[in-house]
Amino acid sequence: MTDSIAANPDRLLPADPGTRQIARELLADVEDLPIISPHGHVPAEWIADDTPFPDPTALIVSPDHYVTRLIHASGVELDQLRVAGTTAVDSRTAWRNFAEAWPLFDGTASGYWLRSSFEHVFGLPGDVVDALGADNADAVYDAISAKLAEPGFRPRQLFKDFGIEVLATTDDPLDSLEAHARLAADPTFAGRVLPTFRPDPYINVAHPEWSRRVDRITAEAGDGAAGYTGYLRGLENRRQYFVEHGAVSADHGVRTPLTLKLERAEAEALFEKARRGEATAADRDAFEGHMMVEMARMSVEDGLVMTIHPGSYRNHHAPTFAEYGADTGHDIPFAIDYTAGIRPLLEDFGTARGFHLVLFTLDETVFSRELAPLAGFYPSVYIGAPWWFLDAPDAMLRFRSAVTETTGFTRTSGFIDDTRAFCSIPARHDASRRVEASFLARLVAEHRVTEARAHEIIVDLVDGSPRRVFKL
Amino acid sequence: MTDSIAANPDRLLPADPGTRQIARELLADVEDLPIISPHGHVPAEWIADDTPFPDPTALIVSPDHYVTRLIHASGVELDQLRVAGTTAVDSRTAWRNFAEAWPLFDGTASGYWLRSSFEHVFGLPGDVVDALGADNADAVYDAISAKLAEPGFRPRQLFKDFGIEVLATTDDPLDSLEAHARLAADPTFAGRVLPTFRPDPYINVAHPEWSRRVDRITAEAGDGAAGYTGYLRGLENRRQYFVEHGAVSADHGVRTPLTLKLERAEAEALFEKARRGEATAADRDAFEGHMMVEMARMSVEDGLVMTIHPGSYRNHHAPTFAEYGADTGHDIPFAIDYTAGIRPLLEDFGTARGFHLVLFTLDETVFSRELAPLAGFYPSVYIGAPWWFLDAPDAMLRFRSAVTETTGFTRTSGFIDDTRAFCSIPARHDASRRVEASFLARLVAEHRVTEARAHEIIVDLVDGSPRRVFKL
Amino acid sequence: MTDSIAANPDRLLPADPGTRQIARELLADVEDLPIISPHGHVPAEWIADDTPFPDPTALIVSPDHYVTRLIHASGVELDQLRVAGTTAVDSRTAWRNFAEAWPLFDGTASGYWLRSSFEHVFGLPGDVVDALGADNADAVYDAISAKLAEPGFRPRQLFKDFGIEVLATTDDPLDSLEAHARLAADPTFAGRVLPTFRPDPYINVAHPEWSRRVDRITAEAGDGAAGYTGYLRGLENRRQYFVEHGAVSADHGVRTPLTLKLERAEAEALFEKARRGEATAADRDAFEGHMMVEMARMSVEDGLVMTIHPGSYRNHHAPTFAEYGADTGHDIPFAIDYTAGIRPLLEDFGTARGFHLVLFTLDETVFSRELAPLAGFYPSVYIGAPWWFLDAPDAMLRFRSAVTETTGFTRTSGFIDDTRAFCSIPARHDASRRVEASFLARLVAEHRVTEARAHEIIVDLVDGSPRRVFKL
Repeated sequence: MTDSIAANPDRLLPADPGTRQIARELLADVEDLPIISPHGHVPAEWIADDTPFPDPTALIVSPDHYVTRLIHASGVELDQLRVAGTTAVDSRTAWRNFAEAWPLFDGTASGYWLRSSFEHVFGLPGDVVDALGADNADAVYDAISAKLAEPGFRPRQLFKDFGIEVLATTDDPLDSLEAHARLAADPTFAGRVLPTFRPDPYINVAHPEWSRRVDRITAEAGDGAAGYTGYLRGLENRRQYFVEHGAVSADHGVRTPLTLKLERAEAEALFEKARRGEATAADRDAFEGHMMVEMARMSVEDGLVMTIHPGSYRNHHAPTFAEYGADTGHDIPFAIDYTAGIRPLLEDFGTARGFHLVLFTLDETVFSRELAPLAGFYPSVYIGAPWWFLDAPDAMLRFRSAVTETTGFTRTSGFIDDTRAFCSIPARHDASRRVEASFLARLVAEHRVTEARAHEIIVDLVDGSPRRVFKL
Repeated sequence: MTDSIAANPDRLLPADPGTRQIARELLADVEDLPIISPHGHVPAEWIADDTPFPDPTALIVSPDHYVTRLIHASGVELDQLRVAGTTAVDSRTAWRNFAEAWPLFDGTASGYWLRSSFEHVFGLPGDVVDALGADNADAVYDAISAKLAEPGFRPRQLFKDFGIEVLATTDDPLDSLEAHARLAADPTFAGRVLPTFRPDPYINVAHPEWSRRVDRITAEAGDGAAGYTGYLRGLENRRQYFVEHGAVSADHGVRTPLTLKLERAEAEALFEKARRGEATAADRDAFEGHMMVEMARMSVEDGLVMTIHPGSYRNHHAPTFAEYGADTGHDIPFAIDYTAGIRPLLEDFGTARGFHLVLFTLDETVFSRELAPLAGFYPSVYIGAPWWFLDAPDAMLRFRSAVTETTGFTRTSGFIDDTRAFCSIPARHDASRRVEASFLARLVAEHRVTEARAHEIIVDLVDGSPRRVFKL
Repeated sequence: MTDSIAANPDRLLPADPGTRQIARELLADVEDLPIISPHGHVPAEWIADDTPFPDPTALIVSPDHYVTRLIHASGVELDQLRVAGTTAVDSRTAWRNFAEAWPLFDGTASGYWLRSSFEHVFGLPGDVVDALGADNADAVYDAISAKLAEPGFRPRQLFKDFGIEVLATTDDPLDSLEAHARLAADPTFAGRVLPTFRPDPYINVAHPEWSRRVDRITAEAGDGAAGYTGYLRGLENRRQYFVEHGAVSADHGVRTPLTLKLERAEAEALFEKARRGEATAADRDAFEGHMMVEMARMSVEDGLVMTIHPGSYRNHHAPTFAEYGADTGHDIPFAIDYTAGIRPLLEDFGTARGFHLVLFTLDETVFSRELAPLAGFYPSVYIGAPWWFLDAPDAMLRFRSAVTETTGFTRTSGFIDDTRAFCSIPARHDASRRVEASFLARLVAEHRVTEARAHEIIVDLVDGSPRRVFKL
């Protein structure tokens, strides 16, 4: 009569007994399918070098801003968790701070993933996980540390044990992709680790690095051309380099979904103005909007799937940004408008053969209002899976409820784990599969989808969609 | 042990056995009530002339942009479905294209309606419908064609068999309403087919036809007056003509909910500016907003119920619009603001005796935030039923959940099928009744409404509300 | 086998039998806990003077704009309900008007509270309440009147019988707080009745009273200083006075969540411009935004919890406002933006030690998109409980579903009844507890929270959160 969550075979399944039974059967179809992860943030070097993971804090706590943000909200300074390379406390102390904060995570997505990895990856007993806190913090730290020292806990073995078939990384356009090349050339490694072209700092004029990056990409890949011409050439050439190294997508973390089609001369003038440091905020928005149309054009030409992640107010708390840098837990979503914003891009490329455009959102209101109608007409558009704050059971159910009645099951991207928390990857994909089974089971129970078709659909959602949408 | 959806008496009812039992009993109260359809797009000529329906493709596929849009999203050109009168393929080939796309519709509202009409109207076996695809496309085409040739499948017989009591059409202000008059005068026809006054192209300055329509309505109905005076007089006189032909409502497909009260001289100046082709976008918005207040004034005077449908970005993909025209599946909703927008109109007429104003939305966020509070205070305001992308089971449940706690069950419009897909009308109303039963059953099961009252409420929702709100 | 709602021990609990059983057990933990009401509108004088409540209409109908608004929507003039001190009809006639409108309240939150107070406070039988209408209106009026004449129905006895431990009022900054002082000094009264500092008319330049209030607070509490300096000093001193009289919070009913940091000289210039009656709408927004940052600064200094309620279009229908005044049922919510709006305030004080900032919303879309991410990072930010149109069972479940997966159970304010309807207070808190039990029971049934933890969490939500967040 354990109360353990992670061990319960019915975890996340609906409470109604009849619906749960259907969900169990649907889940059985996909529970053991390989993991396909077409967007995430695990460094390729971890897999290529196969170096042991560091201590529990460095692996599980410090780099995961889902985890550190909620502890910070409870009044703990980020340096007490060794965020951003700080060393105000040692790893064991930081772990204790985390353990004492454990009850904060009840009911959260992060809590679910942590729990699952503690039990399933590190083999901790459910009652130990339940009781995580000051009393057993050290013992748990030691238990995980011991596991990490075992050969079976090296990245490559875990990659295999987790059943990962494809893992995409997120990379700078000028990255050598050396680790990816090594893995591709290694006959002892059966998985696929694919780079993703992420040009944000080369496109976002407000980025502090923008001008330097433009210099570099023009110099290194601009075919000798200067100015706007060399810049575009540089981007095109580096995309080609990524394609040759196995990349299937280019990812864009833009401020808003605004796109804009400028005449060549206009775009060039804006580029030069920005290079002189004279761009206004409106100029920057216009240039970024224009570059999204350019990126779409390149995707049509080179086949990279284009993914867009707008609507996050980055680094909301300036003092925290000044002290700890970016990605430290205070990127806050806001309302977005895809309908008018993405239109210029879709005017030109919405029906282009072979073009795949995956639209993500942190603003749930656009799922039924904008994304389902867009993806239900444009052959290029796919609805990105619920992401970031929304990749949790209830939010994923709301997502399916919001889009399915308009677009069915064929216009969504498949699950995206979007994580650098390597050990949480199985739990995230498992949770997603359970939610898909739960949603479909309800539709079967309500006689809205036949049971036979539901068995086909769930396999397509878990396995077919990501392969098809990301051209795998 | 058939897996057929459309034949299952519990389709769309909640999975929990206790709640389902309550829902069944509530449904029984309304399942066989006559259909009242106060807003839709079936041409009156179909009924008046009682001509046989054309082939299956022309009846079921080509004119239904709910259906063609999702097939288009899967990569099929619209002309492969004979959209907008195109003849690139013959009807049978277009039907095959539809049949091959059938699995796309799993879980969608359109799929549910199609399935229901295949089984209930055309008598196809459930397993044939389940297997619709390349293999049986021709056989199904032939089976439906054969049915359409039977006398029992003429529009008037179906009208009777479907149990339709009232069917409103949507008509141009200068329509002669000849078909409506013929039906009203025909002692062999027991139903009511009512015209609806839809003046969009006469009000929306951006409409390509606007100036010509203004010319015509002024000339034909302006009582000899010219300019703005003749224009208003023309609209008033044609409304009166509609009233005399049985119309109960005037419908307005506006861009946004903005309303605006201009002084007479200001309005006249804007009108003249627009007539000279010099109106800016802001002028057009102002004039449209002003005309909504004028339309409300006329409704107060002549008693026509005023319905407003804002928030759709019409003809989003210009190349498709250029090739196929309007209403071809790429009208995309966006966020709207009713609270500030509708205020000027409500300042003047919100409490006017007998004035009925039905507010529709494609932006679900306004249901709880704006429409329920507005309809819960203003005697004139009714919340329009979920419409277009939202007239589906989950969306209709979200609607009831969003508005009921603030306004109860007396401030909503009753179901609107809004369709030109004649054979889907019974399925649409049936689905709506099942959803109302499901929602009420949950409230009974949770002891929030008594079972006795729930039986009264469901009859009022299905039968009382549309009669009361649309003055039938 | 009564059909009574209020008497049913399972009211508001989920229909699924297994989940309901868990909910029952969770509810048992908190059903009898004392009521903590940190924000509401009951006048302290009622308790201090312990005068008998007036007639049923004056107690239950006329002052409750939740109730009168829906009757108004059905076509009854507000003066037929004796709203705003009108005497067009006598109390008994107004009560009859209410009784005849009783079916309007089916499924509404107000209906639920009314029913509960009729049965639980006034002891009316369930079937009498079910049948409330023209036939029994007088008898019910008499029955309630008779109860109100009993000594046991005096405010202090009800306060005790209701199990209220803390009741916060809402007060003008210049209120003497004499009633609060009397209660605090009275050894025969065991409860806590706390004032709340509500400075809206002193801050909102558009308020008709603004300039006079500024005069008064400067004269009475400005330490002899004039202008902006005296104004700020006056606010600070009166806050201190409130603190000394037991206040724990300052409440702000602002138009939008916009905050703004102005230089001292800029703020002073704006203040003087507004004093001269020359402020534009933009000036007023800027000044209000700036004053929110000032209020936050004062809260950091004096420890008062800062609560913000934006996003209501006050007095939407000008003719009704002209005739009946404010708070008569036509405040209509609109969309808001917390992410950018609240940022300037959080830049300065988001991590200030001991600062508590409770953010309320009437726009549900911000729960998952903005409030959960904000409260999941900033130690100062708490998510205000669903309020006004949203303090109803379904809306409260949507709230928990929207915020929990991001922030868990520790970042919300605890239930707020926000009411002047004294007799509805137990029903409101009871409903909230039932909804918390229902939400948690689902998470237990879905194996997302352990049952053991759920028992701890529900006690914390009901009892711990309000004490902690409001520093009680």
